[in-house]
Amino acid sequence: MKVNGYAAIEPKAELTPYSYELGPIGSEQVDIKVSYCGICHSDLSMINNDWGMTQYPLVPGHEIIGEVIATGNAVKNVKVGDKVGLGWQSGSCMSCDQCMEGHHHLCAQGEATIVGRNGGFADYVRGHWSWSIPLPDAIDMSKAGPLFCGGITVFNPILLAGVKPTDKVGVIGIGGLGHMAIKFLKHWGCEVIAFSSNPNKKEEILKMGASRVINSKAPEEIESITGKLNFILNTTNVTLDWNSYLTALAPKGKFHTVGAVLEPMEIPAFSLVMGEKTVGGSPIGSPALTKTMLDFCVRHKIYPDVEEFPMARVNDAIEHLEKGKARFRIVLKN
Amino acid sequence: MKVNGYAAIEPKAELTPYSYELGPIGSEQVDIKVSYCGICHSDLSMINNDWGMTQYPLVPGHEIIGEVIATGNAVKNVKVGDKVGLGWQSGSCMSCDQCMEGHHHLCAQGEATIVGRNGGFADYVRGHWSWSIPLPDAIDMSKAGPLFCGGITVFNPILLAGVKPTDKVGVIGIGGLGHMAIKFLKHWGCEVIAFSSNPNKKEEILKMGASRVINSKAPEEIESITGKLNFILNTTNVTLDWNSYLTALAPKGKFHTVGAVLEPMEIPAFSLVMGEKTVGGSPIGSPALTKTMLDFCVRHKIYPDVEEFPMARVNDAIEHLEKGKARFRIVLKN
Repeated sequence: MKVNGYAAIEPKAELTPYSYELGPIGSEQVDIKVSYCGICHSDLSMINNDWGMTQYPLVPGHEIIGEVIATGNAVKNVKVGDKVGLGWQSGSCMSCDQCMEGHHHLCAQGEATIVGRNGGFADYVRGHWSWSIPLPDAIDMSKAGPLFCGGITVFNPILLAGVKPTDKVGVIGIGGLGHMAIKFLKHWGCEVIAFSSNPNKKEEILKMGASRVINSKAPEEIESITGKLNFILNTTNVTLDWNSYLTALAPKGKFHTVGAVLEPMEIPAFSLVMGEKTVGGSPIGSPALTKTMLDFCVRHKIYPDVEEFPMARVNDAIEHLEKGKARFRIVLKN
Repeated sequence: MKVNGYAAIEPKAELTPYSYELGPIGSEQVDIKVSYCGICHSDLSMINNDWGMTQYPLVPGHEIIGEVIATGNAVKNVKVGDKVGLGWQSGSCMSCDQCMEGHHHLCAQGEATIVGRNGGFADYVRGHWSWSIPLPDAIDMSKAGPLFCGGITVFNPILLAGVKPTDKVGVIGIGGLGHMAIKFLKHWGCEVIAFSSNPNKKEEILKMGASRVINSKAPEEIESITGKLNFILNTTNVTLDWNSYLTALAPKGKFHTVGAVLEPMEIPAFSLVMGEKTVGGSPIGSPALTKTMLDFCVRHKIYPDVEEFPMARVNDAIEHLEKGKARFRIVLKN
């Protein structure tokens, strides 16, 4: 099958139209006609080869919403005509301990949608049936794409950390991921404090459900909540004053990062020991949890704040994101 | 009441006989006639003022076993004649959120047995009734002292981390704390791997219940268990190659330190994120959990390996500990 997409042909290049053949479909694979695809910061990192694992030409895009148009002969769960979402991961071995325990996102053989293969800035994309997740009927397809990478990435930690509706929680970095985290946690029943370095976002952040916005560049503001938070989710990938956030945690509090900060985090053991605190992290989430998240979103009408661009204007959209102007997630439409 | 004990009168001093008055008993306090008292590394740290919070003269000792000889008029749970244990903590406010939730060991007003007051290297010691924990009838009093600090310190993390009998676990540092951790985890049903820098301890460690002893100074030995352990407990307080232990964890594995390492721990976010791993810490444990631990010890006949010295030979005992010769915990007998 011939696919028409937009590819970077070298690091930091503008995307250009690019066609390629998908070859015969695998027995466990599905082909998806792309309706929408979100843009994630990871797309920029891959375009720029920040992680040293990009193969060019690269068609980015891994927050895909579309319709199944073909299935291999051993596909389960989905059929031609189904509306599905496909996110950061597009395959897993299905047989290792992690897959067998339902943690397909921790599969060491996992296939990522835009690593060594092409993603969703295109008219078609291919993925394993397990990661091609059927959409609930009532979902708004035009806004659902970002749930499949950014959304599940911030939803999973809420479950992992056992966050309770009675908890007071913090979210660091209110961009694509952080704004979804605020919405999830608000509907979880929590009191939500946002940490943002951009004072211009304050009103919008309060509308999302945060009860307070703390300027993350003002140490005295962070100090004002010493010992108060049961859970803090970090969505940024820059080095922060980790101990100031550990200090903001209540006893038994949990700090969780989904941002893969490059420098080691300097964590004082004393801060962990005296308050029985933990520091954890996680990548996306499992297919099963993604399904649970979609149900939660439909039931509570939780969607990212989306700005829509036509697929052909992908370079304008990327520039908009790079300039920090996205409010709060961009979706490309075919 | 007059108390005769052994005190350090300045940093690093030998202990010398020292008498002091306890004054009138508080309404919620109990006085304990000391039968046995363990020696913990924290006693050395306090004698040497390593943490800058020692008040001299200092009577160390916080792994106390004895008999209640007097009670204040509002004491609950214990009565004169009861055999009790008193550990690192000797009081808590009983009314803050942490106390009211059963986490008296996290009380910000908590009183420590040898911080600003005198401990158990003496004939009598005083504590709050909540921390003067009645001993099960069947317990061996001569060996029970170290359970009240070292024991509960390594027992608490097993509960905090939700360790399961099917887990494969590691213990770093096989001294006073580590050897008790091995025994607890073995009786928990786990497969236990010990990390020790002292090859001479190997046979003894295997007898405690470890299935394997890894030389913690040999990186290739640590690498041999990459991705295998569900839980690792660090009982040392020196800087280790943290990431090599994070790498030894299986996906979703938990690293937990009870050693208050002074330098910040350098934790790569990537290691946490990709494997959904956590790094945590804890101090001792609550009175309620201490009681649970004692029941578990009696039921499984779990005791520290103890070397007994008469109280009058306290300086010999300290020298024995400082030279690294203790196998594995020293108890002083009155």
